[in-house]
Amino acid sequence: MADFVANNLFVLIAALLVFTMTGSVGLLEVGELGEEYGHTSLLKVMLISGIGFFVMAMVGFNMAFAPTIRGIIGSPLYGPGFFLGGASNVTGVFWSMTSQYFGTGLSMGTYFFFETAFATVTLALVGVIVLKKVKLEVFAIFSIVYFLIIWNLPAAWIWNPTGWLYLLGMRDFAGGLVVHGAAGAAGLAILVQLWMEEKKSGLKESLQVPINVSPMWLTLSIVLLWVGWFGFNPGSVLAFDSSAIAVVLTTFLCASSSFLSLMLIVYWRTGQNPGLIMMSNGVLMGLIVITPLAGFVSPASAIVLGIICGPLFYGAEVWFGKQKWFSDPVGLLPGHLIGGLFGVLMIGFFSQNIYTAASGNASVPNGLLFGGGTAALHQLGIEILGIIVVLAVVFTISFVTIRVLSAAMHGILIRPATKNKPDTNKF
Amino acid sequence: MADFVANNLFVLIAALLVFTMTGSVGLLEVGELGEEYGHTSLLKVMLISGIGFFVMAMVGFNMAFAPTIRGIIGSPLYGPGFFLGGASNVTGVFWSMTSQYFGTGLSMGTYFFFETAFATVTLALVGVIVLKKVKLEVFAIFSIVYFLIIWNLPAAWIWNPTGWLYLLGMRDFAGGLVVHGAAGAAGLAILVQLWMEEKKSGLKESLQVPINVSPMWLTLSIVLLWVGWFGFNPGSVLAFDSSAIAVVLTTFLCASSSFLSLMLIVYWRTGQNPGLIMMSNGVLMGLIVITPLAGFVSPASAIVLGIICGPLFYGAEVWFGKQKWFSDPVGLLPGHLIGGLFGVLMIGFFSQNIYTAASGNASVPNGLLFGGGTAALHQLGIEILGIIVVLAVVFTISFVTIRVLSAAMHGILIRPATKNKPDTNKF
Amino acid sequence: MADFVANNLFVLIAALLVFTMTGSVGLLEVGELGEEYGHTSLLKVMLISGIGFFVMAMVGFNMAFAPTIRGIIGSPLYGPGFFLGGASNVTGVFWSMTSQYFGTGLSMGTYFFFETAFATVTLALVGVIVLKKVKLEVFAIFSIVYFLIIWNLPAAWIWNPTGWLYLLGMRDFAGGLVVHGAAGAAGLAILVQLWMEEKKSGLKESLQVPINVSPMWLTLSIVLLWVGWFGFNPGSVLAFDSSAIAVVLTTFLCASSSFLSLMLIVYWRTGQNPGLIMMSNGVLMGLIVITPLAGFVSPASAIVLGIICGPLFYGAEVWFGKQKWFSDPVGLLPGHLIGGLFGVLMIGFFSQNIYTAASGNASVPNGLLFGGGTAALHQLGIEILGIIVVLAVVFTISFVTIRVLSAAMHGILIRPATKNKPDTNKF
Repeated sequence: MADFVANNLFVLIAALLVFTMTGSVGLLEVGELGEEYGHTSLLKVMLISGIGFFVMAMVGFNMAFAPTIRGIIGSPLYGPGFFLGGASNVTGVFWSMTSQYFGTGLSMGTYFFFETAFATVTLALVGVIVLKKVKLEVFAIFSIVYFLIIWNLPAAWIWNPTGWLYLLGMRDFAGGLVVHGAAGAAGLAILVQLWMEEKKSGLKESLQVPINVSPMWLTLSIVLLWVGWFGFNPGSVLAFDSSAIAVVLTTFLCASSSFLSLMLIVYWRTGQNPGLIMMSNGVLMGLIVITPLAGFVSPASAIVLGIICGPLFYGAEVWFGKQKWFSDPVGLLPGHLIGGLFGVLMIGFFSQNIYTAASGNASVPNGLLFGGGTAALHQLGIEILGIIVVLAVVFTISFVTIRVLSAAMHGILIRPATKNKPDTNKF
Repeated sequence: MADFVANNLFVLIAALLVFTMTGSVGLLEVGELGEEYGHTSLLKVMLISGIGFFVMAMVGFNMAFAPTIRGIIGSPLYGPGFFLGGASNVTGVFWSMTSQYFGTGLSMGTYFFFETAFATVTLALVGVIVLKKVKLEVFAIFSIVYFLIIWNLPAAWIWNPTGWLYLLGMRDFAGGLVVHGAAGAAGLAILVQLWMEEKKSGLKESLQVPINVSPMWLTLSIVLLWVGWFGFNPGSVLAFDSSAIAVVLTTFLCASSSFLSLMLIVYWRTGQNPGLIMMSNGVLMGLIVITPLAGFVSPASAIVLGIICGPLFYGAEVWFGKQKWFSDPVGLLPGHLIGGLFGVLMIGFFSQNIYTAASGNASVPNGLLFGGGTAALHQLGIEILGIIVVLAVVFTISFVTIRVLSAAMHGILIRPATKNKPDTNKF
Repeated sequence: MADFVANNLFVLIAALLVFTMTGSVGLLEVGELGEEYGHTSLLKVMLISGIGFFVMAMVGFNMAFAPTIRGIIGSPLYGPGFFLGGASNVTGVFWSMTSQYFGTGLSMGTYFFFETAFATVTLALVGVIVLKKVKLEVFAIFSIVYFLIIWNLPAAWIWNPTGWLYLLGMRDFAGGLVVHGAAGAAGLAILVQLWMEEKKSGLKESLQVPINVSPMWLTLSIVLLWVGWFGFNPGSVLAFDSSAIAVVLTTFLCASSSFLSLMLIVYWRTGQNPGLIMMSNGVLMGLIVITPLAGFVSPASAIVLGIICGPLFYGAEVWFGKQKWFSDPVGLLPGHLIGGLFGVLMIGFFSQNIYTAASGNASVPNGLLFGGGTAALHQLGIEILGIIVVLAVVFTISFVTIRVLSAAMHGILIRPATKNKPDTNKF
């Protein structure tokens, strides 16, 4: 009972913090692109939150977390997770939280709330490339598909204890791949379709959306996202124990050392002072990179990882900045895609048994930097396999979905004719 | 001890979330009416919070929650609740939380904080019709009366285990009537007085305050209110147990299905896209309607209730919109009054024993939709009685108070002469 | 185990709330001085949070909280607190939290997070006098020194159970001196240097920064700070028990009665209505004054202390407002310095054994108002000694640091030539 209370209470609070992050991503867009993006940005926040909870409750949660069919997909009609079919067992311990599996005693209700919040914030990340370019009705329908199958497959494979990648030994602590990497792949699919339509309309390069800092909203969003990550990473222990406390440290320390590292890199490379956007990106990059291994490494390793974040983000930002066929002003690709995947790879280097065991992942071997040897190489290979499969599948389904929507709705691009219109209530 | 810790910690956190809602209602006004309402709106937030804690600590808390005098009103001088008289017992278990009554072991301090936060947010709801029309000194004095007696009577009757309506069998889980319905009745009393004064000054209809969306503040307020409701409803279990987890689900699912339902209704009726105001109202209506029965129904029922919210709000909004003798741009009447009362009535239809028992309300019978039969009809009759009595009493006391204030302070309406003045520091 | 879970969970949540206060102080500046201060204000928030966590993790935490060297300073290389040296013990119970000392079982990770959040918010308070006057690179380097030694000395003396002032019997519950008073002393040191440079540039009095209220940001910041104080004061019990609940009450009641008291004083003295700035200051003054003794007094005493806050703040504000050699528009000196020190002195008057014992500070005697007699006088003497020593040392080290920085960086004042430039990304 003590464990039931502590674990469920902690994870519910964590879930609430993650829930706020969908809104915080909307504020981040406004903070970086200016208040004129407020309307579009916040319509998305509402749509994502509203549709996310509804679709996940109907069947999406089961697709990810019910006992899987051959390791591929959760059983959509699994009773205890299917609200309209069952629901009498809503407060019972969920099957994967019993002692046979993760053993943390979370109830279905707690786990549903936590994971649904993860799903919504993942789509919010995808949404930062929608800008004012994609029709909101396209994005609304895409959202439904997203919560039915796109978000759910990687979760079923990696976070469901009967998923095929989980059984292979793949680990992704709080979603370097399941959240950040997969958001990048889905976003890329939309960007490709956008470019095809922009090119067809005669453009030589994609319309670039300029940065236009709104300092108060930017910093409010960074503080809220940082606070949200307190739910995101420590909550991913799915229990309140000493491991959850360690994850608080790895998360906050990686963020602060990444911040300092990026400050110094920008100053060294440009001779100029970094400014609010780079400061924000420094914090976010640290939070993203530590996500997939926050429960597997020491606080000292988290600081080292944060220091690597500076040059990593700077290089990625410069490289992506040269590509002119898409516009990604908020940094989905250099931040979430590159940062998330980099963090997953680092599992093979920085993991330490003493930390992995504490977070209930005893099977993650020591990393290459801690004497892991061939076991670490094997782990690294599995992580790479997982990355390739997940990116390929998420990109493909997202692209097919967006192609179908484009065909059915006369393109996903807002018609040029409306470009000069003020930012109305249009949806 | 485990229960003491878990229950008090959970309810304190819930109380803190509810505390933020007073401010969030202020931001909601700004989000819907524009930044020019910032000053007035936020003066109210400060006044309500400051006066609320002071008056409730002096005597207001006792008026609602001390052992009642004949079921009518809590004993104002009950020692453990009366700070200046006693207070040595501030951390002891409050009388109504002992095993003889609710049995959740909350201390007086925890319960005081939770209920005071409820009282302040209730007055914040009343305050949305004050706009820039009512003198703030009138509202300040009204606040004192409000926390002395107006908020307290319905609470003493329905939430105090010795209250006459509670003993009759009336239930109102987290305040469909005690909070939302009563706020509507008090607001209506002020609106009547406002109209009498406007008419006297020669107006043919009340000055309508136009909607003027400020997207960032609106969405920030919706996110904060949604988060606040995590305290409002689950915290109303007054304990952390599996029922509190179920209430998280019913609350969030009703909000999301109400959002979707209102979107579709607006699109179907107007052929236009809904926009941020309707999206916000969709979320809020779901949260309001589920409030009085969040602990009595299944998640599946919560989704059904949310679907009903769409047409309910739309119809109410259209009907109230045609009335020209008052201005209610933020939707106190179609949202809080209609939604709150509708939710209370639904107790007689959607309750299920398995959920009511878990939330410590074993005496609520199954609803009409779940085979409740005559017991359900009887429950429905009690709820209707409660609604009538509470609305009548709250309206009457509020109206008498505002009449007296109007007489003493030369009207409650800000003098027309000041209408064109800029929004100064005036208070 | 139950205690481990409850205490660590509660203090981690409290730490998260305190963490947000650094950002909230930034929003407070914007709320009082206008959105044009957004950029500078929020660069500071980022710098302080980023540098704070990094430096505290490296060695700053040890300087304050490791076993002390002769009561003067924590051992910088103490293994369990020194991340790059040790860190394997990150989740073990910290030495001062074992039953030999405070006995609340907090892990090193929890305690590190809580205290680092305190350190960052303290510097955020210092930062309100930086305005747009001090070069941000000066402030950045000052921050490093601040987290290395300036914040740490008073903490080591008063909050470390082997510190010399602690052993003398000095108590400061949540930082009236360690946080607010010390922030005032460090701020004063910067103000003196600023004035020396302004005078040298030919000014007759310091450039005064005008108040320019931004109502939404001001109230958002007040709500967030008030919520943050729920972490600040109750969290300072370092455990979740009935004392923590009592501290919630003393904190919130002092804030509300201080608010009302200042409202009435301003109205009585000026005949005008107070407005948002005074309302905000009323709330903040109550929160500051109760901070050093929130765990030692009854809720009734907290209300009385709040009532005293009104005239105290008003008098201090008027007096400091007449000084023209510095500009302190946000009120570091009348609020944090005067309020913090006043609260510390009140320990000798308002403490009551029944409350001090509950918060684990059994050695604080009853105050003079509760029959403490000579024991209370003795306590008062120790508090005065502590105030004098801490103010002198913090002022001196801060002043030396800022002098050295001024010499090395050609002054701390932003060159007049840049005064007319727009608020760019400069850092």
